[in-house]
Amino acid sequence: MSSVGEKRKAKKYVLVKYYHGEPKESDFEIVEEDLPEVKDGEIMVEALYYSIDPYMRAHMQLHKLPIDMIGRQLAKIMASRHDSYPVGCHIVASLGWRTHTVFKPEIPFQTESLPVVRVPDISPHPLSLSLGMLDMPGNTAHFGITESLKPKAGEIVVITGAAGAVGSHAGQIAKILGCTVIGFAGTDEKCKYLINELGFDHAFNYKTVDVPTVLGEAAPTGVDCYFDNVGGEISYKIMRQMKQQGRITVCGSISSYNATEPAKVTIMQPIIAFKELKIEGFLCLSLGEQMVGRYEQDIGVD
Amino acid sequence: MSSVGEKRKAKKYVLVKYYHGEPKESDFEIVEEDLPEVKDGEIMVEALYYSIDPYMRAHMQLHKLPIDMIGRQLAKIMASRHDSYPVGCHIVASLGWRTHTVFKPEIPFQTESLPVVRVPDISPHPLSLSLGMLDMPGNTAHFGITESLKPKAGEIVVITGAAGAVGSHAGQIAKILGCTVIGFAGTDEKCKYLINELGFDHAFNYKTVDVPTVLGEAAPTGVDCYFDNVGGEISYKIMRQMKQQGRITVCGSISSYNATEPAKVTIMQPIIAFKELKIEGFLCLSLGEQMVGRYEQDIGVD
Repeated sequence: MSSVGEKRKAKKYVLVKYYHGEPKESDFEIVEEDLPEVKDGEIMVEALYYSIDPYMRAHMQLHKLPIDMIGRQLAKIMASRHDSYPVGCHIVASLGWRTHTVFKPEIPFQTESLPVVRVPDISPHPLSLSLGMLDMPGNTAHFGITESLKPKAGEIVVITGAAGAVGSHAGQIAKILGCTVIGFAGTDEKCKYLINELGFDHAFNYKTVDVPTVLGEAAPTGVDCYFDNVGGEISYKIMRQMKQQGRITVCGSISSYNATEPAKVTIMQPIIAFKELKIEGFLCLSLGEQMVGRYEQDIGVD
Repeated sequence: MSSVGEKRKAKKYVLVKYYHGEPKESDFEIVEEDLPEVKDGEIMVEALYYSIDPYMRAHMQLHKLPIDMIGRQLAKIMASRHDSYPVGCHIVASLGWRTHTVFKPEIPFQTESLPVVRVPDISPHPLSLSLGMLDMPGNTAHFGITESLKPKAGEIVVITGAAGAVGSHAGQIAKILGCTVIGFAGTDEKCKYLINELGFDHAFNYKTVDVPTVLGEAAPTGVDCYFDNVGGEISYKIMRQMKQQGRITVCGSISSYNATEPAKVTIMQPIIAFKELKIEGFLCLSLGEQMVGRYEQDIGVD
């Protein structure tokens, strides 16, 4: 453990080339930098886990190169001149892909930050849960379902990217709310996991089934709610089988993030108008302190 | 004028071939049929004006051939065995493209009907206004703006299909509400009309301008609200220049109705998610009695 003022180096990932198709190692450089001294009100943390998320790709392409990689990390406080953040505690913060960081917890270290969360003792659960299920992916699922999509008991909820970090939690939350949950994922193994482990009512491998057929069988009277993580043509197919005034929450568009050109898909406006669909884009980012509030309430941080 | 019980023929347009591209005369047949006797509670009306609307095309393609053409008509009551609908009165009703109709005003004559409206004396205004500005297009504009899009004074509202029956009214209503209104239309003449006659703040010919450039100049801080009548690629360009949590009402998708294949356009989900857009499909059809209520309130029918 470092003491206050000790000279230390940080390493960080910097994006030096915009991805073309799948990201490659050569799109990044690892840059070393001297850490500044820890001043009054600041802390120095060491990263334990990074959250590597699909949204990052789209985000990076909106900014000029070179770009420090963004994102949440679970870190341990190694030095502190801040009474509320003592040495040895764990935090989750928007610090990006860097090993060590000196910063003031109240001031965003990167633009578009979520607030710093102090991690309580969650043993015997693994500490990494505080970065996933308890942080951005879990909160996107929780608030995306409860504040955006708002499914009612008895309604049919379809989830794409259903085995992903967000989708798998969204489906479980919809089940707790009394919904019938239909998931789409990309392997048979994932589908078995969704049904047998997570309690989804149906799960289909979108690569091997005919989406309209299986959806017509699983939801013969139509789909009430759609939690969309992937965008693209499968979303259009699902929208065609929604009930009048069905609701959609769009949390991501994974299907398109690795495309070299913006994907061309079937025009959606006719189905939006004729079915009077309600569609809402949802970002965890806008939750801000609300997210921390829920965390502290559920987990008992004070 | 016919008396009750007189034998009379009706002519109607029947769609016998699904349109391929632009509709052709040979896609239709004119069919003659005997009108039934006017029974208790029924009326017989003669059509004066038909409303020919873009939505019809999309609607027809959802049904099996041959299909009686649907839609609103302004008609005169020629015979009546219903006390509330005396001979000589005018009504607007969902009777389709037919010259004469015998029906009970309380029972929908075609599926997906709007209620029958009794037309008051609106002279010196032309009677046909009761089919346009006071009926489906005007109500789509009125309720689409006031109940779906809900722009606030000072907000920037973009309207596509701005010189159309719905768009031209939507823009005027948004102006009355204190918004800055930007219209897109397909000829310079329409744009002049929008600015000089209807009071739009800006109007652009989408065929000759670069949409992102003119929108960047007219709305440098971004677009708050978008009233979408056309769908497609221009809608994607407008969505890219919306503010975070911007609102969109989709009333139609004119750009795609005459396409021989469903149009392929740039995927919208990434921009929906990252901008947290709220999109709502809006159909006048769902208004039902609410529409008639507004009509009777504004126009003074009792």
